[in-house]
Amino acid sequence: MSKALAELMEEYREIASKGLKLDMSRGKPGVDQLELSSGLFSGDECHEKLIAASGVDCRNYGGLDGLPEAKKLFADMLEVAPENIIIGGNSSLNIMYDTVVRAMLLGVYGGHPWIHCEDVAFLCPAPGYDRHFAICEQLGIKMISVPMTPTGPDMDKVEALVSSNPSIKGIWCVPKYSNPDGITYSDETVRRFAALRPAAKDFRIFWDDAYCVHDLDEEGDTLLNLLHEAEKLGNEDMVYIFASTSKITFPGAGVALMAASKNNVELIKKQITVQTIGPDKLNQLRHVRFFGSPEGIRAHMEKHAAILRPKFNTVLNMLEKELTGLAEWNRPRGGYFISVFLKGCSARRVVRLCREAGVVLTPAGATYPYGIDPDDSNIRLAPSFPCVEELQKAMEIFCLAVKIASCEAGSDNM
Amino acid sequence: MSKALAELMEEYREIASKGLKLDMSRGKPGVDQLELSSGLFSGDECHEKLIAASGVDCRNYGGLDGLPEAKKLFADMLEVAPENIIIGGNSSLNIMYDTVVRAMLLGVYGGHPWIHCEDVAFLCPAPGYDRHFAICEQLGIKMISVPMTPTGPDMDKVEALVSSNPSIKGIWCVPKYSNPDGITYSDETVRRFAALRPAAKDFRIFWDDAYCVHDLDEEGDTLLNLLHEAEKLGNEDMVYIFASTSKITFPGAGVALMAASKNNVELIKKQITVQTIGPDKLNQLRHVRFFGSPEGIRAHMEKHAAILRPKFNTVLNMLEKELTGLAEWNRPRGGYFISVFLKGCSARRVVRLCREAGVVLTPAGATYPYGIDPDDSNIRLAPSFPCVEELQKAMEIFCLAVKIASCEAGSDNM
Repeated sequence: MSKALAELMEEYREIASKGLKLDMSRGKPGVDQLELSSGLFSGDECHEKLIAASGVDCRNYGGLDGLPEAKKLFADMLEVAPENIIIGGNSSLNIMYDTVVRAMLLGVYGGHPWIHCEDVAFLCPAPGYDRHFAICEQLGIKMISVPMTPTGPDMDKVEALVSSNPSIKGIWCVPKYSNPDGITYSDETVRRFAALRPAAKDFRIFWDDAYCVHDLDEEGDTLLNLLHEAEKLGNEDMVYIFASTSKITFPGAGVALMAASKNNVELIKKQITVQTIGPDKLNQLRHVRFFGSPEGIRAHMEKHAAILRPKFNTVLNMLEKELTGLAEWNRPRGGYFISVFLKGCSARRVVRLCREAGVVLTPAGATYPYGIDPDDSNIRLAPSFPCVEELQKAMEIFCLAVKIASCEAGSDNM
Repeated sequence: MSKALAELMEEYREIASKGLKLDMSRGKPGVDQLELSSGLFSGDECHEKLIAASGVDCRNYGGLDGLPEAKKLFADMLEVAPENIIIGGNSSLNIMYDTVVRAMLLGVYGGHPWIHCEDVAFLCPAPGYDRHFAICEQLGIKMISVPMTPTGPDMDKVEALVSSNPSIKGIWCVPKYSNPDGITYSDETVRRFAALRPAAKDFRIFWDDAYCVHDLDEEGDTLLNLLHEAEKLGNEDMVYIFASTSKITFPGAGVALMAASKNNVELIKKQITVQTIGPDKLNQLRHVRFFGSPEGIRAHMEKHAAILRPKFNTVLNMLEKELTGLAEWNRPRGGYFISVFLKGCSARRVVRLCREAGVVLTPAGATYPYGIDPDDSNIRLAPSFPCVEELQKAMEIFCLAVKIASCEAGSDNM
């Protein structure tokens, strides 16, 4: 063992002996962020406030696709029309899962059930969101990796694959502040998505706009509206957009929704009327009362940003100070993650070293289809849940772990 | 036209001209019933009250199968163990639909995906619940009718079919205060269900215990616990129980759940972790706070009964006074429906006559698979939503419509 490695290991053992319990594994809001939405329930005690402006009694059955005023609010947030919106329960993941399931068993607008196809495949820009990949894996949908670039997925590859292979039925995208890279797709990328000419007539873009209003800086990134761009080309039936208030109000008790073309919305409403009488309207009404308008949402999101900014800066400053030369990373202007690419050591080794010292990270490989990072180099850091002090400690351990792993690997970068 | 018919038609035209708008079509609680649960939200304004006793922050992510205290409460209500419970969103219909969908695509415990079977069929005791039948119809599951008897489905037929036909994968049951007949299955019926020996090893009983605590009289019906009976015979994996608070607190904003064996629960949890991070825990916590115990639920249900009893009596008194000889019906001791069997006229004709006079009933045939009542005789009356005065008017029209239709049909019963 080299002298450098021995010294690092001594430092590591000392920290590891402290029995820390820190979690940077998931994009979970901190408690102070949850407090921002305390006012969500004020008014619930007054039963007149449980009746919507449209006269709908939100306590009773009905409202398959959402309250009119909630559809309006979230349509404005996504810059689409209320007719394009279907409101669901508390989880956009649930809506995405159900959307794939319906495609499998019933088919999408203009298509047949995917279970009748010999092969079904999805393109998966990688690194990406592990829960998207898990849906494909569970349902036996083949995943084809597409590399991410600083402007979004490699569109040359996407176009070539989608136009030539009719078994490719979908693609997973997190177009703004992508998970985990924090990349916002460029206007050109969005336009190329809107202009896709898939070999599969029932191909769908699963546009998970999870971080649509989740800017960290005053001036956030701008994402071109995919539904509008697709409409211009008569391609609007190819687009499913998903969003939720999970990271606006409460991750366990928010409102989730999807946006799609008129044809898609009509068919989906017909299909889901067999699954449910409707989602929780009271919770929709609370969100309408609490925000009032998209401006209300924007103002609220600035408070989130004020809490998150120092956390992101803590992580970024430590990376810069300690790991320059050993790793690369993005400086996202929004979202929930910082994606680190190790240059000369194993991500699996670093994640294990961190875990054994009490710091839980997203498992190495989780950001790639089938959990396999071909370079074993990407690690997703989620700075939102711990407080700044905890983050500082966690990052000390993380940086130390990278140095140890690099040293072990005999990297020249050390 | 006979003189009798002419007189009835004159009376009908006079009432029809009043432009009434009355709805007896769905089992929807009345506004006064909703008011009973106004206290559900008290406490929400205090953020300490959003943290569960177990320390779980109900505003944040997590809790795939429900809050421990909510599982306990609803386990006690259903007289099973908390380990048997999985809590879902706001709709037991949604849980049932998703359960069939998972069986189709992923398979149930010990089985293969049903989509790989050449034929999939369900037994449908009829008359039954139209939304159960709609799930089968949408997913291409063949429905086989089984007659209802005063003690539940005809068990000779159920046993013979289930034990001989491996394509029969399930049966829909509303075992207590059945929809629409209001029949509670006898102990013998429940024991025979528990002892079924299906040809399909992955056969499941879909036991929709929608009205488990929904007694109208002080002394309600007693339903034997199917999970316990099945456990005694080592048959517990055959049982799925479903319930919700839709008709306990709020139909749009209650808590739904399922109960099943350890093997089933383990597999389902593994499967749904890909679909969602978890249902709304705040709403579960509200229900725990509001009821405290199963006794709290029982006491609450007595208030519902006090509101519903006069409504059911209004309908039953009118039936007795006006339609004796022309129709038969049950006197349910709980649930939400009164099921009327016409003796000598068409249910379709009666429903149309009612609609044209401003009274909306459940469509004739809806209580049978594929919407086809072989005798065109059953009509489901739902007395919960209108007030007593409106019910009285609606029933006048209904009874008149039956008399007209009987007269038209030249029935000897007139």
